[in-house]
Amino acid sequence: MTALPVSNTASSEVDRLPHVVIVGGGFGGLTAAKALKDAPVRVTVIDRRNHHLFQPLLYQVATAALSPADIAAPIRAVLRKQRNGRVLLAEVEAIDVAAREVALTDERIAYDYLILAAGTSHAYFGRDEWEPLAPGLKSLEDALEIRRRVLWAFEAAERERDPTVRDALLTFVVVGGGPTGVELAGSIAEIARYTLARDFDRIDPTRAKVELLEGADRLLLTFPETLGRRAERDLKHLGVRVRLKAMVTGIDREGVTVGDDERIAARTVLWAAGVKASPLTRTLGAPLDRAGRVQVGRELAIPGHPEVFVIGDLAAATDEGGRPLPGTAPVALQQGNWTAANIRRAVAGQPAAPFHYNDRGNMATIGRNKAVADIKGLKVTGFVAWVMWAIIHVFNLVGYRNRTLVSLQWIWAYATYQRGARLITDGSPDRI
Amino acid sequence: MTALPVSNTASSEVDRLPHVVIVGGGFGGLTAAKALKDAPVRVTVIDRRNHHLFQPLLYQVATAALSPADIAAPIRAVLRKQRNGRVLLAEVEAIDVAAREVALTDERIAYDYLILAAGTSHAYFGRDEWEPLAPGLKSLEDALEIRRRVLWAFEAAERERDPTVRDALLTFVVVGGGPTGVELAGSIAEIARYTLARDFDRIDPTRAKVELLEGADRLLLTFPETLGRRAERDLKHLGVRVRLKAMVTGIDREGVTVGDDERIAARTVLWAAGVKASPLTRTLGAPLDRAGRVQVGRELAIPGHPEVFVIGDLAAATDEGGRPLPGTAPVALQQGNWTAANIRRAVAGQPAAPFHYNDRGNMATIGRNKAVADIKGLKVTGFVAWVMWAIIHVFNLVGYRNRTLVSLQWIWAYATYQRGARLITDGSPDRI
Repeated sequence: MTALPVSNTASSEVDRLPHVVIVGGGFGGLTAAKALKDAPVRVTVIDRRNHHLFQPLLYQVATAALSPADIAAPIRAVLRKQRNGRVLLAEVEAIDVAAREVALTDERIAYDYLILAAGTSHAYFGRDEWEPLAPGLKSLEDALEIRRRVLWAFEAAERERDPTVRDALLTFVVVGGGPTGVELAGSIAEIARYTLARDFDRIDPTRAKVELLEGADRLLLTFPETLGRRAERDLKHLGVRVRLKAMVTGIDREGVTVGDDERIAARTVLWAAGVKASPLTRTLGAPLDRAGRVQVGRELAIPGHPEVFVIGDLAAATDEGGRPLPGTAPVALQQGNWTAANIRRAVAGQPAAPFHYNDRGNMATIGRNKAVADIKGLKVTGFVAWVMWAIIHVFNLVGYRNRTLVSLQWIWAYATYQRGARLITDGSPDRI
Repeated sequence: MTALPVSNTASSEVDRLPHVVIVGGGFGGLTAAKALKDAPVRVTVIDRRNHHLFQPLLYQVATAALSPADIAAPIRAVLRKQRNGRVLLAEVEAIDVAAREVALTDERIAYDYLILAAGTSHAYFGRDEWEPLAPGLKSLEDALEIRRRVLWAFEAAERERDPTVRDALLTFVVVGGGPTGVELAGSIAEIARYTLARDFDRIDPTRAKVELLEGADRLLLTFPETLGRRAERDLKHLGVRVRLKAMVTGIDREGVTVGDDERIAARTVLWAAGVKASPLTRTLGAPLDRAGRVQVGRELAIPGHPEVFVIGDLAAATDEGGRPLPGTAPVALQQGNWTAANIRRAVAGQPAAPFHYNDRGNMATIGRNKAVADIKGLKVTGFVAWVMWAIIHVFNLVGYRNRTLVSLQWIWAYATYQRGARLITDGSPDRI
């Protein structure tokens, strides 16, 4: 790394406090920052985006139910009242654990404690050429791109005269049967069956096909098997074709190849199949797993550097029994709080405590009145699970504004079967 | 034009009804379509976008107060219950008035009556090279681009160490002192003074400069002079520097040149100064004014073609006294209704009636508690005008959902001084 001006020059009493740098303003990073509010430290949150994103509802932006701003909050606004916190909108290029510095494109930031919570992006199993053909769902930009493609497909079908092409335009393939894939497939089926049902002249949107492809022998692998089967049944009821043990071997502009030679002619393919860690992890010099996640110790720190913590889905952490923790929001939130507590302990000269994950449950929604939940072994399905899902997700949104707006839009959508953010912006996907 | 398949083949009794083709789903076109609901005609609305846009509130999307979906409605959803209406999402390339056909990229649509309501875009006085440097505000994409530039400027200033560059980043120039320019300048000043005031560490957003440039000797030329002066005073009170008789002679990445040699160093320049008609008007063979608007007769039809109507800001229409009508939403709405009535008359074998504009007034908002209104000579300013403005605009939004969401977000913003859609998406402007 070249020499760049190092900020963090002491100018007041506050500036002499230990400096905690948090990379990433997602669930893990933002929770840690807030939990350090009154600690005797300075906190700097660095993110390349200006907003915290409530990712569990991102599929609702992708499927035109909510607006981007409904599930996002400016990081600066969230931390405004925190006197020991500041925010930098910047891209982190590398971590220099030896020098205890974070390298930005044009600046180096010295730290005493580092929390790396930079998250994951899509992985295409080494087939990066699939990325433009089958967008994944991690950012607001991704969600708007998927929304544009899905809505545009119906419009293009309405104008298409070749029935073979029209069928391909009205076929939607979702690759990956985890929660995101299940939610996307269910939502697209609902758009076709309800929202758009009577809006077209030449096509019948209710005849659109939605195909959900999963490589394993059931959906929702991180849930108990009965809930995976229930999700499968619910999706079929919505008209989704669920294909299990289906390995995608090719994606092109005309469709998807499954296994050796089965073809699905589809103009819209969405990716919900794999994740890979932020490339930042490679600069740590710590052991990584196959997806690039950092193999952290029980205290969530990297070997040899008790001052460098990795949390959220960037960390390959395990529970007391050695089982890997899922890359979910509750894990990230609890790790953020735990790490903040460990930093308070370190500042006070106490040893770090090993992380304990309090598993309160796991839930996924399939569609209107349909969800599955696993709460400490209690399996809940159908309307009750769906209401629980809605309440928990509204409750966990950042800010009263977002909670109110999301609740109202859900009530409106439930009553009318409509979706309020049915916008195609930035032109047709063909022009991209 | 090359031979393309001509649709509009009669297949049922409905298909034998006269065919009204409406180009553009804005205020004029959509109003005309709805007013033809039970008329003995078939209606086809063609738009290259899938949504009707409530343009008077577009500046609120550009200044992070509202989300795109709050001020837009899918054209298909608006016309869903209209049995004689259909919608095509397509780009119109030309009008063939001799053949009575609308040419799309891949299809020709025959019409018996045509309503051209395709609107206007920005005009840069022949300096098209200014367009990427100073975006205008006509579409949702424009609004998101302006939002991105404004919010990003503060973030870039926070990270900038050169004080000269920092000042240029914190200087915002709005070119054009009509309603859009006044609204943009006022909103940016409010963002700096209130919304962002305490959110940064190294910069003081309240010291940002907002400059409003107007070539004439006062603001809001279409309003009575006292209201233009009042808007000027209100803007100055918000910290906006208003420069009258200021002719922009140059725009580049570093700033704006005014008159012979005065420079304003500014990294954000917004354009609210001129409009030009859709290039479609050139294919009509009708007389155009300097901005490319169609000089229609008193019935809003073009000379020699009583079946071709041009409405909204695409029409250079005049009132009974020969005075030009403004390019506003109320004019477009009334022209849409009037033209629908004229088409009903034509179908019934009656002559068309000359358009009469019922001028109910004119209003513009400057900021919190500040607006000006001219209602049939009655001049209203300040808080009362501002409340009137808010009520009228909410009332005229399409759909209960949008009315509710906009009202709630305004109440929330009024109470907290915050802006709910403070998102920078699609990366930094530098990457565009």
